[in-house]
Amino acid sequence: MEFTVKQTAGERHARLGVLTTAHGQIETPAFMPVGTLGPVKGIDPEELHQLGFRLFLNNAYHLYLRPGHKVISELGGLHRFAGWSGSILTDSGGFQIFSLAGLCRITDEGVTFRSHLDGSTHVITPESAIGIQEDLGADIIMAFDQCVALPADRDRVADAVRRTTLWAGRCQESRRRTDQALFGIVQGGLDPELRRKSARDIVALGFDGYAIGGLSVGETKEEMYRMLEICAPELPSVKPRYLMGVGMPENLIEGVARGVDLFDCVIPSRHGRTGWLFTESGRVSIKQARYTRDERPIDPNCACPVCRRYSRAYLHHLYNVKEMLASRLNTTHNLWYFSDFMRRLRGAIADGTFANFRDAFYRMRAEAPSEFVGTAETSGQ
Amino acid sequence: MEFTVKQTAGERHARLGVLTTAHGQIETPAFMPVGTLGPVKGIDPEELHQLGFRLFLNNAYHLYLRPGHKVISELGGLHRFAGWSGSILTDSGGFQIFSLAGLCRITDEGVTFRSHLDGSTHVITPESAIGIQEDLGADIIMAFDQCVALPADRDRVADAVRRTTLWAGRCQESRRRTDQALFGIVQGGLDPELRRKSARDIVALGFDGYAIGGLSVGETKEEMYRMLEICAPELPSVKPRYLMGVGMPENLIEGVARGVDLFDCVIPSRHGRTGWLFTESGRVSIKQARYTRDERPIDPNCACPVCRRYSRAYLHHLYNVKEMLASRLNTTHNLWYFSDFMRRLRGAIADGTFANFRDAFYRMRAEAPSEFVGTAETSGQ
Ligand SMILES: [Zn+2]
Ligand SMILES: [Zn+2]
Repeated sequence: MEFTVKQTAGERHARLGVLTTAHGQIETPAFMPVGTLGPVKGIDPEELHQLGFRLFLNNAYHLYLRPGHKVISELGGLHRFAGWSGSILTDSGGFQIFSLAGLCRITDEGVTFRSHLDGSTHVITPESAIGIQEDLGADIIMAFDQCVALPADRDRVADAVRRTTLWAGRCQESRRRTDQALFGIVQGGLDPELRRKSARDIVALGFDGYAIGGLSVGETKEEMYRMLEICAPELPSVKPRYLMGVGMPENLIEGVARGVDLFDCVIPSRHGRTGWLFTESGRVSIKQARYTRDERPIDPNCACPVCRRYSRAYLHHLYNVKEMLASRLNTTHNLWYFSDFMRRLRGAIADGTFANFRDAFYRMRAEAPSEFVGTAETSGQ
Repeated sequence: MEFTVKQTAGERHARLGVLTTAHGQIETPAFMPVGTLGPVKGIDPEELHQLGFRLFLNNAYHLYLRPGHKVISELGGLHRFAGWSGSILTDSGGFQIFSLAGLCRITDEGVTFRSHLDGSTHVITPESAIGIQEDLGADIIMAFDQCVALPADRDRVADAVRRTTLWAGRCQESRRRTDQALFGIVQGGLDPELRRKSARDIVALGFDGYAIGGLSVGETKEEMYRMLEICAPELPSVKPRYLMGVGMPENLIEGVARGVDLFDCVIPSRHGRTGWLFTESGRVSIKQARYTRDERPIDPNCACPVCRRYSRAYLHHLYNVKEMLASRLNTTHNLWYFSDFMRRLRGAIADGTFANFRDAFYRMRAEAPSEFVGTAETSGQ
């Protein structure tokens, strides 16, 4: 993997870059959709490509449980398995183990947990997390880290920072494949000193890229942005910076303004499934009865395949009758919104108008007609 | 609507035709997929077109309940509502009322039933069934008939035949739109005399096309075929013949051999959702563990978008983890199978090789390797 910073904006730390993997180039800042069980729920990988995405995330935890990393390895790796010719990033599984699985025991050796599917007991160590991700064969893999649920007392966060650094070193040592990029992860909760310490420790180990983890777990936007302001300057400017599990469009703008290059979040697909649709003016909740006879597209300014062909009335009906196509069309529109949003955001950096783009974004939201529901505070990983 | 018989096969009664509606031409014999709540479950209408379909069925009963025929009428009718530029046939709602809804009372006036959704009471008469279908605005609409669950005693079937004829006449009289074709429906259970009587009564009324209803409700294949042999010769050869709710590929061949031009069935989509995939050699049950590492496509001879890109292993995984994309890809393959099957069947009639096509079909099934599960006896509407 190679990363080149093409341009930095005069304002703040926003920057344009290109990430090059064996599976192509990704223009940054970029947003990665999340394919939990392989594909983004209901979406054909080919559509993901048509929507403008060149990199998406797969969850190692889910693929480890089903169908198993060994099966995917035997079938030639994730790209071939899923019919995806673009790039893939796998997370290490840590976040899911700490949030979804039944956690049994954390020691410096590793984590013992119970599968959320059948309660079976598993042990994951930094070494096995790397082994699993090498079998899966993504272009970018992540170090195994300890994410602490917030709020947590300082000792607990400090211990997780210590362990995350310990594990990061072992992840590096256990690597066998040289064709995958390995990113280290900065932890430290909402503690500025621990964040700074974690960033310095991880940078000292030397990774191909750096992720900021443990955010978007319930803290306020202001707390999240403050942590970014502390972490980002500690990370080498020649390497990509990845804010994990974030987020809402405003989080993307603010992350980019603080020097972030990569984001991932389940929001476009999860909100699509619940009928929350993103528009320039805010969000449309398609389940509302007011759309029963509304012949307009979701967003008159949207050029996505859904807005080009379907009315709010039809999408409201599909949602209302729980037709599978509803999730799919809603997710498609949302994915397009995120793809197009990042494209416009990159254009603004290139033109030196990022500050204007950001102002216009907030102004549109403020002027949104009453039918649009305001944006949420946080995004959720 | 116009119907032209282009060619009749030397063997049996198989025939080639063209059905022309305001929304285009449909080559017959043709199979119609079923869009229960609007779209075929999970499938974009544009994909339906790409898969080769030019005509599909919508259920008036479901659309009457949600979003309501008045809403669809205000939005410009079904074609515009669903973004479908091809042709549409709506059933009258009778079959769903007799099978799905809570039936309260049948009189010569009409049917009182309770919605399967909320238990609310509704009355549908032949006149209102036509009114609903005129509001929906399909190219082809169906007379309101009484379908009797089998087995039933002769008096009950005879009474349903009498009432179906009575209602058919009233459907004709209540029509207002002249741009829709109206098909009459032949009933009569498994009673040859009642079938013959019903066919003659309905033909005497004079419709744009004729459907054979009340089959594929649990009878054997042989019983179904026997009823076709009785009904089809009674129906005018210059009008299209439509066998409702059928069926399996072998039913399509045998229906065509007995003079049927149109079929509809939920099988491609319903079986797709349960992981039953059609191939030349029989059906593949993708849920089986044997496919975990199977790199082959569903059917090496299939040119569908799914077989061109995905392995059985991937489809097995998607099914196994209950990923929404599984239903969609499986349905897409099955729809292609049915579309391609009818295309090849029409080609065989055109070439005068329909008998060979039929023999080859059964031979392939007989020689199917053990991994393929045998075909089911009946199809279900
Ligand atoms: Zn759109
Ligand atoms: Zn196929």
